[in-house]
Amino acid sequence: MRGFSVFDRVSRAFHDHPTLSKALLVVTVSGGGLLAYADANSSNGAQIINSSEADTKKKKVVVLGTGWAGTTFLRNLKSPSYEVQVVSPRNYFAFTPLLPSVTCGTVEGRSIVEPIRNIVRKKKVDVQFCEAECIKIDAENKKVYCRSSVNNNLNGKEEFIVDYDYLIISVGANVNTFNTPGVMENCHFLKEVEDAQKIRRTVIDCFEKASLPTTSDEEKKRILHFAVVGGGPTGVEFAAELHDFVNEDLVKLYPGLKDLVKITLLEAGDHILNMFDKRITAFAEEKFRRGGIDLKTGSMVVKVSDKEISTKELKNGGEISTIPYGMVLWSTGIGTRPVIKDFMKQIGQANRRALATDEWLRVEGCDNIYALGDCATINQRKVMEDISAIFSKADKDNSGTLTVKEFQEVIDDICERYPQVELYLKNKQMRNIVDLLKVPKGEVAKESLELNIEEFKSALSQVDSQMKNLPATAQVAAQQGVYLARCFNRMEECEQNPEGPLRFRGQGRHRFRPFRYKHLGQFAPLGGEETAAQLPGDWVSIGHSSQWLWYSVYASKQVSWRNRALVITDWARRFIFGRDSSQI
Amino acid sequence: MRGFSVFDRVSRAFHDHPTLSKALLVVTVSGGGLLAYADANSSNGAQIINSSEADTKKKKVVVLGTGWAGTTFLRNLKSPSYEVQVVSPRNYFAFTPLLPSVTCGTVEGRSIVEPIRNIVRKKKVDVQFCEAECIKIDAENKKVYCRSSVNNNLNGKEEFIVDYDYLIISVGANVNTFNTPGVMENCHFLKEVEDAQKIRRTVIDCFEKASLPTTSDEEKKRILHFAVVGGGPTGVEFAAELHDFVNEDLVKLYPGLKDLVKITLLEAGDHILNMFDKRITAFAEEKFRRGGIDLKTGSMVVKVSDKEISTKELKNGGEISTIPYGMVLWSTGIGTRPVIKDFMKQIGQANRRALATDEWLRVEGCDNIYALGDCATINQRKVMEDISAIFSKADKDNSGTLTVKEFQEVIDDICERYPQVELYLKNKQMRNIVDLLKVPKGEVAKESLELNIEEFKSALSQVDSQMKNLPATAQVAAQQGVYLARCFNRMEECEQNPEGPLRFRGQGRHRFRPFRYKHLGQFAPLGGEETAAQLPGDWVSIGHSSQWLWYSVYASKQVSWRNRALVITDWARRFIFGRDSSQI
Repeated sequence: MRGFSVFDRVSRAFHDHPTLSKALLVVTVSGGGLLAYADANSSNGAQIINSSEADTKKKKVVVLGTGWAGTTFLRNLKSPSYEVQVVSPRNYFAFTPLLPSVTCGTVEGRSIVEPIRNIVRKKKVDVQFCEAECIKIDAENKKVYCRSSVNNNLNGKEEFIVDYDYLIISVGANVNTFNTPGVMENCHFLKEVEDAQKIRRTVIDCFEKASLPTTSDEEKKRILHFAVVGGGPTGVEFAAELHDFVNEDLVKLYPGLKDLVKITLLEAGDHILNMFDKRITAFAEEKFRRGGIDLKTGSMVVKVSDKEISTKELKNGGEISTIPYGMVLWSTGIGTRPVIKDFMKQIGQANRRALATDEWLRVEGCDNIYALGDCATINQRKVMEDISAIFSKADKDNSGTLTVKEFQEVIDDICERYPQVELYLKNKQMRNIVDLLKVPKGEVAKESLELNIEEFKSALSQVDSQMKNLPATAQVAAQQGVYLARCFNRMEECEQNPEGPLRFRGQGRHRFRPFRYKHLGQFAPLGGEETAAQLPGDWVSIGHSSQWLWYSVYASKQVSWRNRALVITDWARRFIFGRDSSQI
Repeated sequence: MRGFSVFDRVSRAFHDHPTLSKALLVVTVSGGGLLAYADANSSNGAQIINSSEADTKKKKVVVLGTGWAGTTFLRNLKSPSYEVQVVSPRNYFAFTPLLPSVTCGTVEGRSIVEPIRNIVRKKKVDVQFCEAECIKIDAENKKVYCRSSVNNNLNGKEEFIVDYDYLIISVGANVNTFNTPGVMENCHFLKEVEDAQKIRRTVIDCFEKASLPTTSDEEKKRILHFAVVGGGPTGVEFAAELHDFVNEDLVKLYPGLKDLVKITLLEAGDHILNMFDKRITAFAEEKFRRGGIDLKTGSMVVKVSDKEISTKELKNGGEISTIPYGMVLWSTGIGTRPVIKDFMKQIGQANRRALATDEWLRVEGCDNIYALGDCATINQRKVMEDISAIFSKADKDNSGTLTVKEFQEVIDDICERYPQVELYLKNKQMRNIVDLLKVPKGEVAKESLELNIEEFKSALSQVDSQMKNLPATAQVAAQQGVYLARCFNRMEECEQNPEGPLRFRGQGRHRFRPFRYKHLGQFAPLGGEETAAQLPGDWVSIGHSSQWLWYSVYASKQVSWRNRALVITDWARRFIFGRDSSQI
């Protein structure tokens, strides 16, 4: 049994005690090796991959991407009635919220990644992985065009086509430069593990270059100026990590350079962390200022050359100023990947930032295509669009008016189908949806309340104002992955017994309940072992205790015991020995 | 005291207990930041770096390279009477014997490196580091030309000149391709940490490429064929590591590919590990054959194309055969770095593989230049060259004959100056050097033994056959580093009171004892938790117990407690969770 690690052996021993932990379940290697593929030349010279005859009963699910959305989907998919093909340029899942920690070596890159094959191999679902990039989606013919991303002397035929019955698009987003000149060429980004490792090397590069005897004092100052563009959680966390790295570790090895180091955080808006509670923003700004991080709000970057950043000072009437820099991290938001842009053009969704889906994560205007994570946004249905349909569905006796009793029968369906209604009630502090109906009528007894279509419209006219796009976070993507996997697990069952709300514009009920996002809170690490946490119910916690909460949440959220152990030992190593400054 | 890690704080606490450990000594930040440099333009446009006036009393030592030799020198240098400037393209020391472990993720690259600044910062010696490559040595003017190896937007003036009083050349060697066509372009090497990381990625690349649906079975076989050229310790250890990686870890994630993987070890000689005892060679060959590693001895690689290796079968009358491959590691020996080649031409040592030094590690024909490690070889002095001088020095009464008494007075000096004499006696199993003198005379009483110059020559005529070049190992380099540092530490002291042997061709004594290598044994890890160990006194140990010896020796030899802890936890991580196969 040499071929099995201790962990596997322990797992086997715990076979009969499934309550212990998910990760201690028996190892079940997914059946039967690789699929058999029939090769055939298509018209454009690429090969078409068809599933073999034996598997035709199984529906073929193609998952694009191995980020949060795709991986969570795969982890939660349990129904053996699918044959899953994963296509991604990365053969691993990366725990992206820890990327800022990787930039300065608080955590190693390898500790936050887990091979996707390892994640799926213990499942009973038939999952195959291809390390390739999707270059085109052909929704009409249900095909996906892929290109192998492995390049060295191993090149065979580079492109191939994969058929699908269901397509799950979870390719994520790329960086958004807002077409600012020079950004692509001169800035660092923080989307991938490689980005973080490159940043780490560049920081050390800057210190080494500044230590050379030939570097003038002015050059030293420029080289040791680290600029961060974008005051969101990523930018803030990187600035904080870098500040710690410099002050806790590098200062000991480069004692002569301490006073020359400068970190600047540039934010176009009035405040950093503007998605957080005001108390957190104020604390972070104060802490950064005290710690010596130069905070420039109202400062929009208009150009980045190889040695200077040009900014437009929005507060000073748009004055343009330039700042010399040594390294700059660009983290201002997310853009659209070319393959998604191309696909959006095909399906008439051009000019959008992300793919529009309905509340069931189905791409609008397509059959059997789902999109989740950063590459998609849910196009929430407006109540006012469906108001007549809702009214006539609710008005069972076709009297032309709606009684409270009639309305109460459809209340649950309305709230489920249009989550903005509940949000509106909560914001207006109404206890009950019936209170909403009272608004156009004034104070009347609940029993005698009766509304015609115009009064009904007027009662619900404001609810759509509560619609909000979901943030592009790991939390949203992961919840969408779980949701979609559950839908797929119960596809046949729900086909027979739909569990969703009433179809107001059609007959019967929706197959599934629509996706609902549940916000579990958000962290903003601020350096010096302090973190700001905003938890549900507007509960705000700032300081060392939140840092420990952060440690425990991030450790527990790791996708494998291996990741968990590695991340925790990385923290311990850093705590004991500090961060490493070797240039590798 | 935020700026100090726990380790430092503990170190401080142990200040008064220096017996605990070297690593627990107080942290003494080396004085005074960076040196001041006076800029001036030299004739060729590069800048000349002069030490400031205040430091003129201190002799300036320039160390080239931060490998085993250079780092060990720096670690052992204690005399504060030097101002040391280290020039190396890598700002860290790498524990190279663990590089083969890094290729497959048994140990992480970062765990075996330690920043050179960290190594020197706790010393009282004034050591400065420049991340730059030495491109030219000007022995005549005592100058070294350097080029910064940091390249991104940070470029200022790229080249500079460093003056020295003593120059220590420890730049190591590069790979030796023996001018075999295609090797540089298509092969992997294993000299640097980056090489090991690249090999790791390529192995995974091969598995991913072989998993693509478009790859034909024949292609899969080619891609999964890993070739290792060179049956030395590095090649053997890599083959063993790769075999373990495939059979313990990858086989679980790529179950369909197991039977297609092939590892071939190509060796031009008749046996692998030919510097080891025959028992070890036989055991390793048998183990590899049983484990399924294809061992091809007598097979000389004559060409490497992008997909095929051409070999000349020395056993089959020089037949040329070609083998398709997916990845090939070239580890056949070491070559000369261009800067050393260039320098050797200057000093009339062209056509050599490495710089020739005397037994005091001084480069022949140069003043105050020392060379150690893989870039140098000690040109041992032949007894026969000095035989007349030895005779006349020993013949104190100028009688033209040498009595035993006269000879006994210089015995110690001869043995110290010419270590081959002792080796010769040991090999001939003579108890005493006087026995040597008896050879030309036959059996005579010791007291009446008297030799003339011709008889003396004849007695010592065979001793020079025992001269051997030292192997290019970390052990030799490290011992040379320690030796040279001790010489530098006692330079003034020994100037007054020379401690070396008699100068046979001159007056007085040598300042220092010549360098003597002490072989402490060698390991050859063979995979499957088995290691072969050859210890002094021809003691051979093979198996699991040697593996544990290997673990303890390699853990204890780490240059810092940080490295030690990291390497040990890496082993533990591997033991528990297996090796990671993410492509980063």
